[in-house]
Amino acid sequence: MEITHSLDYSVSFGDCDPAGIVFYPNVYAWFDRTFHEWLWQFGGHEALCQRLEALGLGLMEASAQFRRPMRNGDLLSLTLSVEEWGRKTLQLAYEGRVGGQLAVVGTEVRGLFKLGDTGMVAAEIEALRGIVEANGQR
Amino acid sequence: MEITHSLDYSVSFGDCDPAGIVFYPNVYAWFDRTFHEWLWQFGGHEALCQRLEALGLGLMEASAQFRRPMRNGDLLSLTLSVEEWGRKTLQLAYEGRVGGQLAVVGTEVRGLFKLGDTGMVAAEIEALRGIVEANGQR
Amino acid sequence: MEITHSLDYSVSFGDCDPAGIVFYPNVYAWFDRTFHEWLWQFGGHEALCQRLEALGLGLMEASAQFRRPMRNGDLLSLTLSVEEWGRKTLQLAYEGRVGGQLAVVGTEVRGLFKLGDTGMVAAEIEALRGIVEANGQR
Amino acid sequence: MEITHSLDYSVSFGDCDPAGIVFYPNVYAWFDRTFHEWLWQFGGHEALCQRLEALGLGLMEASAQFRRPMRNGDLLSLTLSVEEWGRKTLQLAYEGRVGGQLAVVGTEVRGLFKLGDTGMVAAEIEALRGIVEANGQR
Repeated sequence: MEITHSLDYSVSFGDCDPAGIVFYPNVYAWFDRTFHEWLWQFGGHEALCQRLEALGLGLMEASAQFRRPMRNGDLLSLTLSVEEWGRKTLQLAYEGRVGGQLAVVGTEVRGLFKLGDTGMVAAEIEALRGIVEANGQR
Repeated sequence: MEITHSLDYSVSFGDCDPAGIVFYPNVYAWFDRTFHEWLWQFGGHEALCQRLEALGLGLMEASAQFRRPMRNGDLLSLTLSVEEWGRKTLQLAYEGRVGGQLAVVGTEVRGLFKLGDTGMVAAEIEALRGIVEANGQR
Repeated sequence: MEITHSLDYSVSFGDCDPAGIVFYPNVYAWFDRTFHEWLWQFGGHEALCQRLEALGLGLMEASAQFRRPMRNGDLLSLTLSVEEWGRKTLQLAYEGRVGGQLAVVGTEVRGLFKLGDTGMVAAEIEALRGIVEANGQR
Repeated sequence: MEITHSLDYSVSFGDCDPAGIVFYPNVYAWFDRTFHEWLWQFGGHEALCQRLEALGLGLMEASAQFRRPMRNGDLLSLTLSVEEWGRKTLQLAYEGRVGGQLAVVGTEVRGLFKLGDTGMVAAEIEALRGIVEANGQR
C-alpha cells in the first residue's frame, strides 16, 4: 500500500506577487503544511519528536518544478507520497493540481534531527518508519 | 441583515515561531484571506477593481488583540463582519475562535484606491457598497 | 533618555502583492524584526527568556496605520520607541519612513509570558524593565 | 568575468519555526530577494519587464540543500552566480554562509514570461542576456 496524503489549499491574494501569480517560496510552505497534516495521524510533529527523542523532522533538501502559474482563487490540491526511506532520510514527493491540471511537482528530503555532541545531527530514521508503517501505511 | 463571512483555517507548524505559537503577523494574513474569500461572491478582487476602475481594496489601518495563543493543529474559525461604511472607507471586524474559545479579534479599515494625479488615492467607496448590498447583503 | 532603536529594511518584490504594493501583514513582521534586533543589546530573546524564566515576549495587541504604499526597492527606515511600561505590559511605538516620508506608524503591546498552572500567562514585567534600564536606556 | 551579486540578511525570530531554526521556505524568499536586488543594476524587475515586454522573470524550477541550521541573529551572506543562459532559461546558483560556514546552496531556473495566445509562455531570453552583459557583466 502506497503512503499518500492530500490537502486542499485555496490560493489567496496575499500569496501572490506583483506579477499576480503565487510567490514561489509559498509553495514550499504548502508542501510543509501537507507534511505536517500527514503527521497528525501519527500524533503530530511535537508528540512524534518527544517519542523519538528528536528536535524535529527537518529539511535536508527540497526542490520544485513550477509547471503552471497559480493565482488568487485557485484551489490547489496537493498530494504527498512517501518515495523512499534511507538510513537517515525520508524522501517525499509532492504533486499539486489546479482543476486537474498539474501546477507543481516537488520533493523534500527530511531527516530526524537529534541533539548530538556537536549540535543537531541527522539520526537513524528507522523508528519513524516503524511508527508510520505500524499505522497501516507501508 | 448583517454582512458576515466565515473561513476555517488550519494552523500549521510553519505558521508558528520558536515559542511554538503563531507568529502574529500571520494572523493579519488570515484576516486578508477571509476578506478576499468574501469578495468572491462579488466576482473577486480583480474583477471588482476592473469594474470600479480601481487599483485595489487596500489597507489604511489594521489592529488586533491576541487573546489566546494558537498552535500547530489548531482549527481557527475566522468571521468577518462589515462594521461601517464611511465615505471613503470600509471598516471590517474580525473574530477568530479555536474550539469555540476566542483567540483573536481585530479590525481593518480599507479604502478603494485609484490612480490619481499624485499617485494612489482613496476614492469614494459608494459604488462598492452598492455592489455588496445589491448582492443581498446589507 | 528615550529608548529607541532603528532598522533599515529593503522592500523586495516578494514582499508585495498583485497591486504591486507591500502586502500589509509583512509590515508587522518588520515591527517584530525591529523589536528582536533591539533585544540583542540585552542578550537576545532566548537569553532574556532564560534569565527571566519566561517562554516569550509575546504579543497582546498590535495596530498600524498605513500612510503611503511601499514598493519593491523602497528602503524602509523603521524606528522603535518604548512608549510605556505597565505592570504586565510593554507598549512600543513604531514609525516607518521611506525617503524621509512617513509610510507607516504602529504600536505593539507585549507581555512577558510564563508557564502558569493554566497555560501561558502574562507575568509582571518589572524584571525586564530593570534589564533594559540598567543597560543605560530609560 | 563571472556574474555574481551578494546580499547580507539578518535572520530574525519570526523567520524561525517551533524547532528554533529557519522555516525553510523563507530561504527561497531570500534567494528571490538576492535576485531582485541584483536586477536593480539593470533598472529593476518592473523596468526590465517593460523594456522586454514581459510579465515577469518567473520561476520554472528551484532547489536547495540545507547544510546547517540557521537561527535568530545569524547574519546570512548570500551570493548569486549566473550559471548558465539557455535559449529560454537563466540558471542561477546561490550559496549562503553564516560566519564563513556553508549553510545553504541552491539553484533557480527562471524564464522570461510573456503573454501568449494561450496564457503566459516562456520567451527567448537573449534580450535579457544582452542587457546583463552590456552592463559589464558576462
